[in-house]
Amino acid sequence: MIRAEREGGAMGSEILEKFRPLFQPRSIAVIGATDNPFKLGYHALAAVTSTGYQGEVYPVNPNAGETIQGRRAYRSIAELPHGVDLFVYAVPETQVLPTVREAVERGGRAGVIFAGGFRESGEEGRRLQEELVRIADSGGMKLIGPNCIGVLNTRAGVNATFASPLAWFPSGNVSVVSQSGGMGNCILNELMDERVGIAKFVSIGNRANVEFADMVEYLAEDPDTEVICLFIEGLDRGDDFLDRAREAARKKPVIVYNRGFTESSSRTALSHTGSVASSEAVYRGAFAQAGLLQVESASQMACLAKAFSMGGVPRGNGVFMATHTAGPAIAISDICERGGVRFPPLRPDIAEALREFIPRHAVAANPLDLFAFAWTDNALYLRAADLALAQEDIHCAVAVFVTGAGSGPVFPAREYAEIGRRHGKPVFLCLVAPAILSQELEEAQKEGVIAYNTPEKMGEVLVHLNRYLLRGAPAL
Amino acid sequence: MIRAEREGGAMGSEILEKFRPLFQPRSIAVIGATDNPFKLGYHALAAVTSTGYQGEVYPVNPNAGETIQGRRAYRSIAELPHGVDLFVYAVPETQVLPTVREAVERGGRAGVIFAGGFRESGEEGRRLQEELVRIADSGGMKLIGPNCIGVLNTRAGVNATFASPLAWFPSGNVSVVSQSGGMGNCILNELMDERVGIAKFVSIGNRANVEFADMVEYLAEDPDTEVICLFIEGLDRGDDFLDRAREAARKKPVIVYNRGFTESSSRTALSHTGSVASSEAVYRGAFAQAGLLQVESASQMACLAKAFSMGGVPRGNGVFMATHTAGPAIAISDICERGGVRFPPLRPDIAEALREFIPRHAVAANPLDLFAFAWTDNALYLRAADLALAQEDIHCAVAVFVTGAGSGPVFPAREYAEIGRRHGKPVFLCLVAPAILSQELEEAQKEGVIAYNTPEKMGEVLVHLNRYLLRGAPAL
Repeated sequence: MIRAEREGGAMGSEILEKFRPLFQPRSIAVIGATDNPFKLGYHALAAVTSTGYQGEVYPVNPNAGETIQGRRAYRSIAELPHGVDLFVYAVPETQVLPTVREAVERGGRAGVIFAGGFRESGEEGRRLQEELVRIADSGGMKLIGPNCIGVLNTRAGVNATFASPLAWFPSGNVSVVSQSGGMGNCILNELMDERVGIAKFVSIGNRANVEFADMVEYLAEDPDTEVICLFIEGLDRGDDFLDRAREAARKKPVIVYNRGFTESSSRTALSHTGSVASSEAVYRGAFAQAGLLQVESASQMACLAKAFSMGGVPRGNGVFMATHTAGPAIAISDICERGGVRFPPLRPDIAEALREFIPRHAVAANPLDLFAFAWTDNALYLRAADLALAQEDIHCAVAVFVTGAGSGPVFPAREYAEIGRRHGKPVFLCLVAPAILSQELEEAQKEGVIAYNTPEKMGEVLVHLNRYLLRGAPAL
Repeated sequence: MIRAEREGGAMGSEILEKFRPLFQPRSIAVIGATDNPFKLGYHALAAVTSTGYQGEVYPVNPNAGETIQGRRAYRSIAELPHGVDLFVYAVPETQVLPTVREAVERGGRAGVIFAGGFRESGEEGRRLQEELVRIADSGGMKLIGPNCIGVLNTRAGVNATFASPLAWFPSGNVSVVSQSGGMGNCILNELMDERVGIAKFVSIGNRANVEFADMVEYLAEDPDTEVICLFIEGLDRGDDFLDRAREAARKKPVIVYNRGFTESSSRTALSHTGSVASSEAVYRGAFAQAGLLQVESASQMACLAKAFSMGGVPRGNGVFMATHTAGPAIAISDICERGGVRFPPLRPDIAEALREFIPRHAVAANPLDLFAFAWTDNALYLRAADLALAQEDIHCAVAVFVTGAGSGPVFPAREYAEIGRRHGKPVFLCLVAPAILSQELEEAQKEGVIAYNTPEKMGEVLVHLNRYLLRGAPAL
């Protein structure tokens, strides 16, 4: 909190200040907080206190005794001090409007609303949501939701969701905004599997008075965020979004995954996806023009975010790849060559230097197949990468290695990362390993090697990075 | 072993008998076995004995003392009893030909050769491999490799590789034949992550005198194999393969993943993939005509194999989907509708029955969004699936559920599976969960629910199953 507040104060940007009460609240009220573990309000209060949040926490419930979960309980919003930053609404939809009105009157600055039953549920819900926006706007209160799972800021210890387990997610520099809570969960899961830490997570839901455009503008300025990930089902004012997303993409990579592209994120999208294809094509074209990177799955999003997160943008499309096993390297090169990534022929002097030490049957080419020798004699990878990265049209190195799963050789990640740093070029590792046994992958990444556990992930990341370069976006 | 031998004896098929010494050897000699853990021969002997193999094991090394790894050592092949079934060659390439000749003379029936330096390494290697085939064929010895990681038969406790960890892979009904050892590892890893057990694994390597065609014919007859997975980089006699693969695909699902489609699996494929696209297109068309299912990644292969492995072939393309969170369901329906999978409108009587109990804002449609209510009130999934599966044009059910990661509700897998069995229709679960926390997924599968941890995997499996149906292959 201390760090977050200092930064918030020093930056002085209008958009950062506008959303400070949401992401760096000095105080949080949980409306509907309870000791009953079968109610959402129990989990919401537990979540808020799960991350060591140091600000004031006010549990509010008209039926409470003296305390809730050991904290002093408040019977009403009117009892709270004036100007609580963030209100977390763990109440049924029928109680949302009156309690938001009370919070606005009491100087509340931001709100998170979990309940559904608004815009996504038909005409009556749409009317209710319009009324909700009118109330919030009258007091300048920014709302996340309704129909969402809330907001997480790992750097400030804020978990304004109803999910304590989100506190497990490690802190990092990737921020995620998802229209759907479920897809938001998917993306967080994939980031966790890729061992990528998150800065902020926003389940934006029905977008009452906070749109993707606002969040993109905010995250573009947020000093804790270096990569922005968006899962979008629909946009109301697409032009506004594109304008602000274009600005953001000039500052940081913006990765977009979109599905079911209609005006509504509700069941309508489910039933009528057939009618959506054309508007999706239009949006996809516009996204590309705005410099946004589009992916086809939560897994691709996490893999690409990892490369950006670790500073892995090569300066061009030339890759040097070395392997001890042809198949995975063939899969990578298949995907790469279809995506415009190249494996430049080695300079004659480099090929000659390679011939000094590569195995007898190996050919000094790129990709370089070192056969099984390299599995045990890891130094072959290091010497080869060191030579190849000196070549001007080679912009990064990829090593392919099958894990010994604890009973065989281990890839020399520290030395490999060091070679990359010396050449100022990113180094990647395709560590063929099951997801459930990938501590080695995590350890390689701690050294600065950008690692993926399948050739498909590795190949797709290289192709996406090349698309990023072609789009003229600045290298990180 | 007892079970395997009994089956082998009872089946009486020529192809099964031909490869019995490879997959169900009564005895195994490990040439190059040693006590030195820095040598391949150490790991090969350790692997052979890692699975509780009950047949005779003969470690052979001219430099050995009395024992190797506690077993009686043999100084030469000539010392072995006549007619050892399987020879595992953990020797350098230069020693392969002479020791294969000795084994053939001593009545050896099958061999696994790890060493590279043959066909994949140029003209001299190609000549050596031709000589190797001549020697083996003269004695009717079947060779896996050279340049491979060997053979695994989980049902007979045979691990004729140099990788003891392969013994960890659970036994099941999916068999894998991979040209590349590295991609074979990838596929096994993905199967492990999907909690799918394997029957047989063959790293087929350079295909000295055993081709994909042989393995496909064998596995089509093998009673332990219900799903066949192939990773192919190249084929020499494509027509022969297609003939026998077509036959196999009439009996069992055959899933093919191909990459770098050239005649050679070596570095050539890496350097010249650009020239390969056209022959790949030809093969892909032929594969489709032969009824083979083609996938684009090891992950897709494992996911689809799981559905077949668990008997999850619906009788038509109609899916009922229920969710508590729209986003992942939208992703699934996007992928499905593009792949010809349908979500049929519910019959009026079924919709009416649904309206009796679904939440107030929910619409009795397909897909069915039950909102957050269904997360805690799991019975909603059960009642809805029970109603919808009674509809004639609905052939399977999909539930979408975000894991509570141990601190929230758990999907009612047992009851859901029971409903599927009652209707005679497969039931699927998209359990949104990180791969590293998917015990819930494993438990759901033990009950008979076919579960995937991302919407993309779930959607792609449904599309592939629909392609399988359209191809006219028999339902399992």
